[in-house]
Amino acid sequence: MQAVAQEVQPFRIDQQRLWDSLMDMAKIGATAKGGSCRLAFSEEDTQGRRLLMQWCEALGCEMRVDEVGNLFIRREGSEPSLAPVSTGSHLDTQPKGGRFDGILGVLAGLEVFRVLDAQGIVTRRPLELIVWGNEEGSRFSPAMVASGTYAGVFEPTYTLAREDSEGITYGEALASTGLRTPDFKTGPRLDSYFELHIEQGPVLEQEGKSLGVVTGVQGIRWFDVTISGVAAHAGPTPMRYRRDAMMAAARLMDQIHQHVQSDPTGNARVTVGTLNIPSASRNVIPGEVSMTVDLRHVKEAELETLEATFMSMLEKVSEEYGVSVTQERIWKSEVVDFDEACIEVVRQAVANQDAPSREMMSGAGHDAVYVSRVAPTAMIFVPCLDGISHNEAEYASPEDCALGCQVLLESVLARAGR
Amino acid sequence: MQAVAQEVQPFRIDQQRLWDSLMDMAKIGATAKGGSCRLAFSEEDTQGRRLLMQWCEALGCEMRVDEVGNLFIRREGSEPSLAPVSTGSHLDTQPKGGRFDGILGVLAGLEVFRVLDAQGIVTRRPLELIVWGNEEGSRFSPAMVASGTYAGVFEPTYTLAREDSEGITYGEALASTGLRTPDFKTGPRLDSYFELHIEQGPVLEQEGKSLGVVTGVQGIRWFDVTISGVAAHAGPTPMRYRRDAMMAAARLMDQIHQHVQSDPTGNARVTVGTLNIPSASRNVIPGEVSMTVDLRHVKEAELETLEATFMSMLEKVSEEYGVSVTQERIWKSEVVDFDEACIEVVRQAVANQDAPSREMMSGAGHDAVYVSRVAPTAMIFVPCLDGISHNEAEYASPEDCALGCQVLLESVLARAGR
Repeated sequence: MQAVAQEVQPFRIDQQRLWDSLMDMAKIGATAKGGSCRLAFSEEDTQGRRLLMQWCEALGCEMRVDEVGNLFIRREGSEPSLAPVSTGSHLDTQPKGGRFDGILGVLAGLEVFRVLDAQGIVTRRPLELIVWGNEEGSRFSPAMVASGTYAGVFEPTYTLAREDSEGITYGEALASTGLRTPDFKTGPRLDSYFELHIEQGPVLEQEGKSLGVVTGVQGIRWFDVTISGVAAHAGPTPMRYRRDAMMAAARLMDQIHQHVQSDPTGNARVTVGTLNIPSASRNVIPGEVSMTVDLRHVKEAELETLEATFMSMLEKVSEEYGVSVTQERIWKSEVVDFDEACIEVVRQAVANQDAPSREMMSGAGHDAVYVSRVAPTAMIFVPCLDGISHNEAEYASPEDCALGCQVLLESVLARAGR
Repeated sequence: MQAVAQEVQPFRIDQQRLWDSLMDMAKIGATAKGGSCRLAFSEEDTQGRRLLMQWCEALGCEMRVDEVGNLFIRREGSEPSLAPVSTGSHLDTQPKGGRFDGILGVLAGLEVFRVLDAQGIVTRRPLELIVWGNEEGSRFSPAMVASGTYAGVFEPTYTLAREDSEGITYGEALASTGLRTPDFKTGPRLDSYFELHIEQGPVLEQEGKSLGVVTGVQGIRWFDVTISGVAAHAGPTPMRYRRDAMMAAARLMDQIHQHVQSDPTGNARVTVGTLNIPSASRNVIPGEVSMTVDLRHVKEAELETLEATFMSMLEKVSEEYGVSVTQERIWKSEVVDFDEACIEVVRQAVANQDAPSREMMSGAGHDAVYVSRVAPTAMIFVPCLDGISHNEAEYASPEDCALGCQVLLESVLARAGR
């Protein structure tokens, strides 16, 4: 049995060693309720990076930090001139973040390096483990700005000028870490990029799956909607004379919600996360309601159709309720489809495991989204407890972390060659 | 023609004189945008009362202020031992109040006295013009506390201990006016009470009516409703796994709104005046929504049924959306039916006018609601522009004010006898 299994899956990652590295990293900036706080380029974040670098130094890796704080850890290949196969994620956290979001992707990369080192394997292509800077966006907005800069979406001067809430710039914070490699400039030069991440949603857990083959990221459109009716006393104003902005908003929300729910593919999403009634009072009919609407879909064309449907609902509600409705689309993120060859590599690696899996689109943004603009990319998801992340209670089981790491190992090996 | 008209309507109020008194009163505490600010027992409110008292002194009236600040202005009748027929309203305003809400009722009473004085009429029953204290509730909560104290709903000690936002008590504020009549205690002793008021709603204006015969006040029930679901990221959480408190609230609002709108009598009302999402964020599915619900009906039994329907909707939404719903009924004001004899007197006086009219229930609270507990009561409404009140833009036309005043004169005369 052992011999047969090894034939198919020659190297196994070490579940306990991976888990221990996760728990050791979690001690840096540990919070009272079992999470971690390592804001980008803070003392804790720097300590976390130094711990990782110490581990990688023991493996003989070369390490460089680019001008926006992305850390590249290189394991040389037998053909050093080839573009490297890369993996990674981030070590920074939300102020009350968890122990897995980002961290699993980085330490799974470390575990891949460790397994290869223990087995004395040299890959054909070089490997790079990348720790992207400031992924969370909690300290410096926007999120994922460092991988975005790597991908050419942001200018380095823009990124370095970002300020935190205390007026410290991104550039100053990065300099204070002492980690910057002089003269090393960022830029696309990767053969491929694989990122392992916790799902940050409930799908895998709810469906009893241990692995997700992530084929892309859904598209997002954000709207600010304002409904203006006429404020009036709740008592003396009969229903037929009202122009009730709140009831118009309720109808609008219910309609778009029903529409999205009735989509049999389950690929559409709508969220009204904030709603405000200016000068609200219990016995005054709201004259104005402002709200945010977040529409998502895994297919760009269908997201376009969803937006059009939503716009026609705005018009209809405006007519029916005698209110004026204004909207502004303040942000748009197009659907990202990952690289088919990279997805196939992940698909095969997943198929090698004796574990239930599914293909899925990511709902959250990741560094992989920006990286996919300049390198063939795919992602691997593992379930997290109750779909919770950005929370001290965030949890992924040692078994699931190990499974994801094993898939990462096999994907990287398949792409890098021996 | 003149002679015939006089036979039917022996005394006409003076439209210009009434209007002039309204405009003179409006100068006290005049606001930039044409309204008035006379918070209860403030210097402006006291000045307003003194102006009225000066006018009434010229008519030979006796004036007394009870221990909670209600001002009683008496025009003696030919049988002084009989209980007085009374009229009145309030002179205090909202911080940015209008020139008519309350004030019209008081100055129409003054105009009635002036007409009777000019004609040399002595009524059989004494007449009393009453200026109730702190009707608006803007300075001291609750509203209508002084007429409520008169009616025995509140203890004077409770009322006098109310505090404004600066910690000044009702009692201290009243004492500072210097108007209190020593040893004069409040208490029911009226034959009847008639109050003229602007409608504070759109019905008369919309229907082209100049006069409303007010037969009572609708019942009110206030609820605090909290819907608890599960907060989650908007992106990675498919619709089928959501427990979206906002969408559950939207369905609830839309359902009760449709139910109330479908009532063919138009006698039911529902308002959601405030809605709050704690820790709201654009891309987070709301885990909790709290909102207020205001239900009203002109018939107590039907209001009871409406409440029951609402409760069953709460249960249904809770089930359908997988959310928990809690509610508390924090206040209840029963339907008030005014005195049939007093209504009939007003009905006759209205019929004497060559003006379109209708019978109606008041949607707003008035001093008349409390007074009706201890004296036969009815009210007269005149239209106000766009149904607006509690606003500097509040407006009622000189013609409509005069019509309402004429009805008040004839009602008071009919009840008081000659």
